[in-house]
Amino acid sequence: MSEEQGLTVKKSDNFSEWYTQVINKSELADIRYNVKGFLVHRPWSVKIMKNMYSLLEKELESKGHEPVWFPSVIPESFFEKESKHAEGFKAEVFWITEGGSDSKKFEERLALRPTSETAMYTMFSLWIQGWKDLPMKMYQSCQVWRYEGKATRPFIRGREFFWIEAHDVFATEREALEQVKEDMETTENVIHKMFCLPFVFLTRPKHDTFAGAVNTFAADSIMPDGKIIQLPSTHMLGQNFSKAFDIKFLDENEKKTYAWQTCYGPAVWRIFGAVIAQHGDDKGLIIPPKISAVDVVIVPILFDKGKKEVLDKCEAVKKSLESNGLRVTIDLRDSYTPGWKYNYWELKGIPVRIEIGPRDVKAKKVVLVRRDTGEKAVIDEKSASNDIVKILESMQKNIIKKADEFFQKNMRDANRFNEMKSLLDDKGGLIRANWCDKKECADEIKDKAQADIRGTLFGKVEKVFNKCVVCGKDAKSVVYVGRSY
Amino acid sequence: MSEEQGLTVKKSDNFSEWYTQVINKSELADIRYNVKGFLVHRPWSVKIMKNMYSLLEKELESKGHEPVWFPSVIPESFFEKESKHAEGFKAEVFWITEGGSDSKKFEERLALRPTSETAMYTMFSLWIQGWKDLPMKMYQSCQVWRYEGKATRPFIRGREFFWIEAHDVFATEREALEQVKEDMETTENVIHKMFCLPFVFLTRPKHDTFAGAVNTFAADSIMPDGKIIQLPSTHMLGQNFSKAFDIKFLDENEKKTYAWQTCYGPAVWRIFGAVIAQHGDDKGLIIPPKISAVDVVIVPILFDKGKKEVLDKCEAVKKSLESNGLRVTIDLRDSYTPGWKYNYWELKGIPVRIEIGPRDVKAKKVVLVRRDTGEKAVIDEKSASNDIVKILESMQKNIIKKADEFFQKNMRDANRFNEMKSLLDDKGGLIRANWCDKKECADEIKDKAQADIRGTLFGKVEKVFNKCVVCGKDAKSVVYVGRSY
Repeated sequence: MSEEQGLTVKKSDNFSEWYTQVINKSELADIRYNVKGFLVHRPWSVKIMKNMYSLLEKELESKGHEPVWFPSVIPESFFEKESKHAEGFKAEVFWITEGGSDSKKFEERLALRPTSETAMYTMFSLWIQGWKDLPMKMYQSCQVWRYEGKATRPFIRGREFFWIEAHDVFATEREALEQVKEDMETTENVIHKMFCLPFVFLTRPKHDTFAGAVNTFAADSIMPDGKIIQLPSTHMLGQNFSKAFDIKFLDENEKKTYAWQTCYGPAVWRIFGAVIAQHGDDKGLIIPPKISAVDVVIVPILFDKGKKEVLDKCEAVKKSLESNGLRVTIDLRDSYTPGWKYNYWELKGIPVRIEIGPRDVKAKKVVLVRRDTGEKAVIDEKSASNDIVKILESMQKNIIKKADEFFQKNMRDANRFNEMKSLLDDKGGLIRANWCDKKECADEIKDKAQADIRGTLFGKVEKVFNKCVVCGKDAKSVVYVGRSY
Repeated sequence: MSEEQGLTVKKSDNFSEWYTQVINKSELADIRYNVKGFLVHRPWSVKIMKNMYSLLEKELESKGHEPVWFPSVIPESFFEKESKHAEGFKAEVFWITEGGSDSKKFEERLALRPTSETAMYTMFSLWIQGWKDLPMKMYQSCQVWRYEGKATRPFIRGREFFWIEAHDVFATEREALEQVKEDMETTENVIHKMFCLPFVFLTRPKHDTFAGAVNTFAADSIMPDGKIIQLPSTHMLGQNFSKAFDIKFLDENEKKTYAWQTCYGPAVWRIFGAVIAQHGDDKGLIIPPKISAVDVVIVPILFDKGKKEVLDKCEAVKKSLESNGLRVTIDLRDSYTPGWKYNYWELKGIPVRIEIGPRDVKAKKVVLVRRDTGEKAVIDEKSASNDIVKILESMQKNIIKKADEFFQKNMRDANRFNEMKSLLDDKGGLIRANWCDKKECADEIKDKAQADIRGTLFGKVEKVFNKCVVCGKDAKSVVYVGRSY
């Protein structure tokens, strides 16, 4: 592999440089657009993210969510209705202030949506009148814009990114709390089982709650460099927004009641960042079969003699695989060698490669190579479809297994502060520790270990196993501590 | 039907009011967001537009286009590189000028993209180096923003709308011209055959060419009020942008050459407006089966006796239809009567309704009603799937046929100016007339008949059949004249 084509750094040696190279060399994105935090997405990333969107949307719709498209601009006056929300997001808003040929200043500034609570809830108050209108569950697939101060990074932190936001309204608090569980199930079904990303679902501490929410629940995963990445989060909004936006309904006893709300935000763009980072290896991307753009690439091995026979066989194999529902491409480019093409498709993380040369035509065989293990097998052309279907299933499981093992290995217990800090310094990850619930102790973790209390396990009370890791007093809960992006 | 639920105006009596009512009452969109030209899209319109997107994307990909996502902001300096383009769009740009908590003014204003030539071509110049990189065909599905001065109208003219823009780069002018034909074929295959919208594909006169283009080609259709609506347009950009953005390549003789470019913009949002307007009737929407959100709704007719049997049968029929690939919903809401539900789903334009009551359970029959003709038939439950598949095919054809007939009837010839004007005053449409090719005569049509020369037929030279409709001198071409939105 020439230095130019392949990765020139090992993932374990320098993750950050590896991540930059893999995004560039596998043609996922181009960072040269020259506006901070705005990324150009090339076809390979778009195709995969479209598959990710489609799986998430299907799951949300199967659970009663309906798609909407709201305006991407929010008048400043809507934006400010829920004061804590406005306060929390103020620093991150891009403002549209003028338009037209004479650049006329608008009477009211328009926020480019950083999130859509204030846009949607303005309408929800018109749509929800009686108890029959509830529950109302909606989602939109869109991009949002945040004027980030921190360093931006492709698919991890940007000023423009792609996500889904689901906004649900209920008649009772109980139903809203049930929704948090459903969102965790969605995260498990799609983000773990399809995208192969392990996570713990945590209740965030009060001091780290979404602006305007009563409680925030979030799925945390661990990146190869030991840093924590937040995948979806769900916010229990209680009645905070329904009071600010006047979302009320006549209940079955004809009584006006404020609705209960939740919202759930799987950030497809960022989740894709975790897919790139967690599954890739020194040869490039490894994309889980459930979301890969194509299942199989066929590379013909051509000599002057027998060229036509090889190409005919490639076409025949393609047709046969496609008739079994597999998505196949043949790499016919004649300006590259087979070896160059192998490296090219390995960089791109395509699950299965088939090599067909003159010998294979005669023997009625094909050579199969699977991306995750690199295993190579010569098989009968007749059984190719079945074998590939099995390989794809096995690969999906294997990618999950590897990711889960890494995750488990990097979730460790600490009894004392110094132990916690040295585990974090060593290789990061999530550290389970005991906490007295006092903000001062959380602050000390931040100051002295440069880490955050990410929260307590959702849906299960874990028994404390020692004193508070900071002050040594009685602990109230087991918390997960980590350093995040 | 109560006045509140159904439409209270006939389409033929007052199209404009009918259009407003149908959008509101079939729950496509809500205009009460209170920012001019920004629409809230409710689930029913999103589901249909998603199907439209998917068909267009599939067709574009089958013709070699690859999906990309570009930033939605364009720095002012990129925007101004092609001077005619900048001049043409200047009046329509929303500007982002500040961000963050202290509302810091940016050094350079960012345009919210009104179209993406200047964003994309900045990158194309980096991606295209040699002849092997060509042709390069890319598209993005996104929304764009235009600070429109004219009156806005849902799905017809907005300040934010949803479209696809395809941008293609070629080594030769000949290939770029071939692309125009391919785009016309895409328009025929999808917009006519799937969305059932008839059109003529015209070469726009020079004075009505896209800002920065050499030539503009566009599909014009006729709305029920006789006004012309532009569906997709294709622009032959020649080398104008490649020179402004330095998109050049080393050709096979190692010579640096500027590339040739085209772009094609099917505005899904606006095309959906034409679908609503052209196919609907006095009962509401009629959605072509190829793009409907659901194929069949089952309405149970329930009495105290035999309730369970009816509901069981509804479920059984649903399962049987679904196993044949049909998309089915059962309307189980118990707070509405069957009659109210019939009207509800007619308003929404669902292709087929099935009614099942206690008598049908006994007789092993179901009642089928098709939306376009209102025809009702009692059929064996066993043959329901096959019958419905046939009905959907027949309905698709029938909707095209009706639209084509209206279109043909409203494309008429005029020999003299007054004849042309009175045809336009009578019922609008497209008027075929002869033109001397002089701008003054085009201006006179604009001034005295409030109409535009939309262009000449693309791909076929039509023989002039009289003198210029304005000045009476020798005509150079047959043109199509109409009044547009």
